[in-house]
Amino acid sequence: MGRQAHINFRGIVHILGIILMLEGVFMSTCIIISLIYGEPERPFLISTTILILFGLLCWKLTDSHRSKSFGIRESFIIVSLAWFLLSLFGTLPYLISRSIPGFTNALFESVSGFTTTGASILNDIESLPYGILFWRSLTHWIGGMGIVVLAVALLPFLKIEGVMLFNNESSGIMQEKLSPRIGSVAKRLWIIYAGLTLAETLLLWAGDMNLFDAVCHSFGTIATGGFSTRNSSIAGYSPYAQYVISVFMILSGINFTMHYFGLKRQFRKVFQNEELKYYLLIIAVFTVVIATELISHYHAHYEEAFRRALFQVSSIITATGFATDDYMLWPNLSLFLIFLLMFVGASAGSTGGGIKVIRHVFLFKKIKASFKQIIHGTAVIPIKINNQPVDSRIVHNVLSFIAIYLSTFIVGSLLLIAVGVDFHTSIGGVISCMGGIGPGLAEVGPVGNYAAIPIFGKDVLMIMMMLGRLELFSIFVIFTPQFWRN
Amino acid sequence: MGRQAHINFRGIVHILGIILMLEGVFMSTCIIISLIYGEPERPFLISTTILILFGLLCWKLTDSHRSKSFGIRESFIIVSLAWFLLSLFGTLPYLISRSIPGFTNALFESVSGFTTTGASILNDIESLPYGILFWRSLTHWIGGMGIVVLAVALLPFLKIEGVMLFNNESSGIMQEKLSPRIGSVAKRLWIIYAGLTLAETLLLWAGDMNLFDAVCHSFGTIATGGFSTRNSSIAGYSPYAQYVISVFMILSGINFTMHYFGLKRQFRKVFQNEELKYYLLIIAVFTVVIATELISHYHAHYEEAFRRALFQVSSIITATGFATDDYMLWPNLSLFLIFLLMFVGASAGSTGGGIKVIRHVFLFKKIKASFKQIIHGTAVIPIKINNQPVDSRIVHNVLSFIAIYLSTFIVGSLLLIAVGVDFHTSIGGVISCMGGIGPGLAEVGPVGNYAAIPIFGKDVLMIMMMLGRLELFSIFVIFTPQFWRN
Repeated sequence: MGRQAHINFRGIVHILGIILMLEGVFMSTCIIISLIYGEPERPFLISTTILILFGLLCWKLTDSHRSKSFGIRESFIIVSLAWFLLSLFGTLPYLISRSIPGFTNALFESVSGFTTTGASILNDIESLPYGILFWRSLTHWIGGMGIVVLAVALLPFLKIEGVMLFNNESSGIMQEKLSPRIGSVAKRLWIIYAGLTLAETLLLWAGDMNLFDAVCHSFGTIATGGFSTRNSSIAGYSPYAQYVISVFMILSGINFTMHYFGLKRQFRKVFQNEELKYYLLIIAVFTVVIATELISHYHAHYEEAFRRALFQVSSIITATGFATDDYMLWPNLSLFLIFLLMFVGASAGSTGGGIKVIRHVFLFKKIKASFKQIIHGTAVIPIKINNQPVDSRIVHNVLSFIAIYLSTFIVGSLLLIAVGVDFHTSIGGVISCMGGIGPGLAEVGPVGNYAAIPIFGKDVLMIMMMLGRLELFSIFVIFTPQFWRN
Repeated sequence: MGRQAHINFRGIVHILGIILMLEGVFMSTCIIISLIYGEPERPFLISTTILILFGLLCWKLTDSHRSKSFGIRESFIIVSLAWFLLSLFGTLPYLISRSIPGFTNALFESVSGFTTTGASILNDIESLPYGILFWRSLTHWIGGMGIVVLAVALLPFLKIEGVMLFNNESSGIMQEKLSPRIGSVAKRLWIIYAGLTLAETLLLWAGDMNLFDAVCHSFGTIATGGFSTRNSSIAGYSPYAQYVISVFMILSGINFTMHYFGLKRQFRKVFQNEELKYYLLIIAVFTVVIATELISHYHAHYEEAFRRALFQVSSIITATGFATDDYMLWPNLSLFLIFLLMFVGASAGSTGGGIKVIRHVFLFKKIKASFKQIIHGTAVIPIKINNQPVDSRIVHNVLSFIAIYLSTFIVGSLLLIAVGVDFHTSIGGVISCMGGIGPGLAEVGPVGNYAAIPIFGKDVLMIMMMLGRLELFSIFVIFTPQFWRN
């Protein structure tokens, strides 16, 4: 699977054709929703037809090239183009039904959906037809499904090394042929993904949610998306529903390989996983500190303060973005902790976004090692994760990743500030979109939305969503001249 | 010079004794200033006597141990204790003359002076006696003098590696005996340091400043300190004086080795220095962008906008902290750029503070290298600075440094926010004190001061000043258990 002389463009188009046809198949379920609720089904009929025909065309015309070999470069191009094309064609229902005015807004909502961000430009969600609400949530679910495969199976193969390690078990993948291995890994992951969705739907339905809302919110939870069917997000639902969603957000932010081990009853591997330990520890500490501040600030009940803190901490660390509270009104320390959480992120190999806990663990261990190194002089101190030494190149790629992430955050913020967006809205919006969270700070906080951002700012934020979702490298690398050199 | 079994505590006390006696000698000049202006000279007489007697005692009692060998650990302890003791004894004139009420405030002003930060808790500077004003500025000058030796001669020896590289010329220092080499390097540096101070004093005196103000502001400039003798800092002086100070701030932010090469007419070495190139480039770009925004925002004259932008950019990047403007009133983009500059810092081997340009250059090159690495697979891409390959361990220590710097910034901000300081004041104050700048954001902006920060917050900020000034490692390392293990 080395570097080839020429990029297999026809093979790329072939695979993108399959992906678009699949999107069409998913979209066709919206026709059924529309029929059930007596809404006009034409927007979805037209969109689905366009998608499937276009996908079929791409697939058929390039069929003769399917057997040609695929390299790293082709995979990078497919991954980036797939998310872009899914989003682009995903705007069709919004535009044809005129639910969302203007192409930029429709694309923003679509990119936000497929990247499982959940940032919205809609002022009144509840006025939308059921079919459109379902499509919004479904874009999350499709995006999350793609991310699970990308993160667990494909990115390690693409040598985005920092992501690799959580997956020591399947590291054999590096030497094998790509397709069959990815296929079998993907199947297991999707079963877990669908199982979690089903379980949450049933639990929510058993509470105060109707089936439609239960399905949509489960899509939004398991994909760590954040689109709701209600203007007030989760605030209007029962404490029971809020706890259920909190738990499933936390579950969705765990490396899916851990779920797999759990199902196979290999609990030792789960308990030994360092990222999981730190992830749960961070949630616990942030929840307790924030809950403590909320109790004294609002004179709230213990249970209520705990629930609000847990929900918002889970929602932000996993990059879901559901809200039960407007944290912009919280006291200083809690708000700052929420802002910091936006830089933490969930676990690698989950649907969650952000920098990811494992990278922070690396950073933390690297810092510890540099202290030892200074004292002991020249000794090289190896870094261990899950009790196994990690190649130093991986460590440095992780550090580079964090540096690029923060640099991108600064550049994005600068661009928004330069077009007149205020400071807090800019930094909050950019880190939120990069992390795939949804709500940011100030104007784009939990009770606000992205409608008022100027068009250029929305373009920047869409790029941030794509960059963050595809772990930066996958996209940036395509824009380097070396990439295209034969 | 390896690691020894036992730490040579008596040797440490011996050297600290010398340092305190030197502080006493410097302080004695304030007696003359007091006499000239007809102010009570007793506070300085008492303080000087205490200092010299105490220093003499430390020195004499441990004289028999001077010949004992010194290791890395002793050097770390001396450096940290030296700055702390200089600051502690530096409070004597403030307390005895009752110019500054309360020990915390006096210590804050003293730490801020010796770390060349320039953050003040004083509301009315102009009401102070000349002797005290002179002592404030002199603490900068002493601190800057210490930093020049520390950064160019001592830190490389202590293997704080990121700092080492600018100084390839004298890398022989690693193998030699410490004292004679440092002595000769230090002498050259101090001549440059004193020469720059003299030149600026004469130029300022030739303008609209009296000799006293010219000397004090030169002390503040060359040490990149920032204490002024006026409440309005440099705003009230002529454009000529503002340009002179801008130029000398920029000069003081350049690696002093470059000045040395310049004096020896080895201009090729100066022109080839990458850090210098980037340092000047950053100043140019930030000045032009901010000046452009100021022109349209204030309908200002070109010259005035340029001068205000240049002065503030130079003041912040070099971590001096003099002000001609309240940048808190500037438009969004300019203010954000100023905030970003607080994270940039001056050049290594200068009196300037912050992360330092060279570290950002490393980061930038490391990021570029990781892209290449992803495309080319396993190839290791070496990083070059000044056309010479750099050992990868040095690169990683630099990355660790930046990570520790940012982590410390976050922890410091959290602590301030937790005691009720508002968000902007907290983050602005912490990064400003860490970088040795002085003015921060909001309440502690250019027209504000640190008087209203609660005592605990002031303690945190003093620690930030010390950590930032001594390049973090030098202090942090002392608090690791390994350090004390024999």
